[in-house]
Amino acid sequence: MKFVTSNKHKFDEISQVFNNAGIQIEWLKLKYDELQEDFTESISYKSAMALKEIIDGDFFLEDTGLYIRSLSGFPGPYSSFVSKTIFNDGLLKLLVGKDRGAYFKTVVSLCIDRRILQFGGILNGTIAETPSGENGFGFDPIFIPDGLNKTLADMEISEKNEFSHRSRAIKHALLFLKNNNSLS
Amino acid sequence: MKFVTSNKHKFDEISQVFNNAGIQIEWLKLKYDELQEDFTESISYKSAMALKEIIDGDFFLEDTGLYIRSLSGFPGPYSSFVSKTIFNDGLLKLLVGKDRGAYFKTVVSLCIDRRILQFGGILNGTIAETPSGENGFGFDPIFIPDGLNKTLADMEISEKNEFSHRSRAIKHALLFLKNNNSLS
Repeated sequence: MKFVTSNKHKFDEISQVFNNAGIQIEWLKLKYDELQEDFTESISYKSAMALKEIIDGDFFLEDTGLYIRSLSGFPGPYSSFVSKTIFNDGLLKLLVGKDRGAYFKTVVSLCIDRRILQFGGILNGTIAETPSGENGFGFDPIFIPDGLNKTLADMEISEKNEFSHRSRAIKHALLFLKNNNSLS
Repeated sequence: MKFVTSNKHKFDEISQVFNNAGIQIEWLKLKYDELQEDFTESISYKSAMALKEIIDGDFFLEDTGLYIRSLSGFPGPYSSFVSKTIFNDGLLKLLVGKDRGAYFKTVVSLCIDRRILQFGGILNGTIAETPSGENGFGFDPIFIPDGLNKTLADMEISEKNEFSHRSRAIKHALLFLKNNNSLS
């Protein structure tokens, strides 16, 4: 099973979930086309359809966005661009005086036997008042999962993988693969 | 000549520039695919390549972004999404204590005789402290062109068309068309 991503952080997190399930994945380090659309599911599906034409065998890709409710879902599908232009600091400025409720959503598009299937994972939480933590990447230092009093960047990968949006989406895909005996 | 856009404001501005040159354009009201990339030129070129396969005859499309220097070019290629999620108000919050220099950039991709050519227009200015004006669309109420003391939204279309990024890009395209006798 190949994982298509250019992001080492994503590969590290996701390969650990697969390793825990006794499955090794192969890193296909590739930057692929993504459309500008409002729904990650649709962006990811179209990317997978295009990749299907050039990749032999089974593969999957992963897309994650941070959705802030009081900002109409901003930064959503454009989280990566926003993260590298206005940074965590910019998001914090936008939230002054606003509700801080947010969620991370991961969509996994799996191409198996030339069919594409999607699996999702959501993590609810709030945007912190100030960044904290050195682990993770992107908006992890400003995201506090519901029920915890620390950010995603305050955790090691193994702890984050116990409940994160990304690991949930991957676990849904793993469950499907096991039930369909698609894994050796 | 067909202009492909789903945005009535853009059609109104651009058709006026063509009308002034004695040329009528046809509105092909269509929402087309745009990739997520950092450079508008590349996004627009790939959209035009795809549209070339489904549109008969000559056509053009237009892409405009607002680039704020102190925010690493944010919102850039994602201006439309940013405009409808964090609004002008959000951009103003991001600029508290920061340099307000910015520019609008328009890229026109013209498909003529099955070839694609690009023309650009830039308008330098600053982001206003508060929105002003009822005309225009998008970020017009918070953009003050260099040398003026009013926003783009304080102007009628005809005044904006005298110097705007959008009209400059179109005028470059018109000059090319005239020099190449491509217009009847």
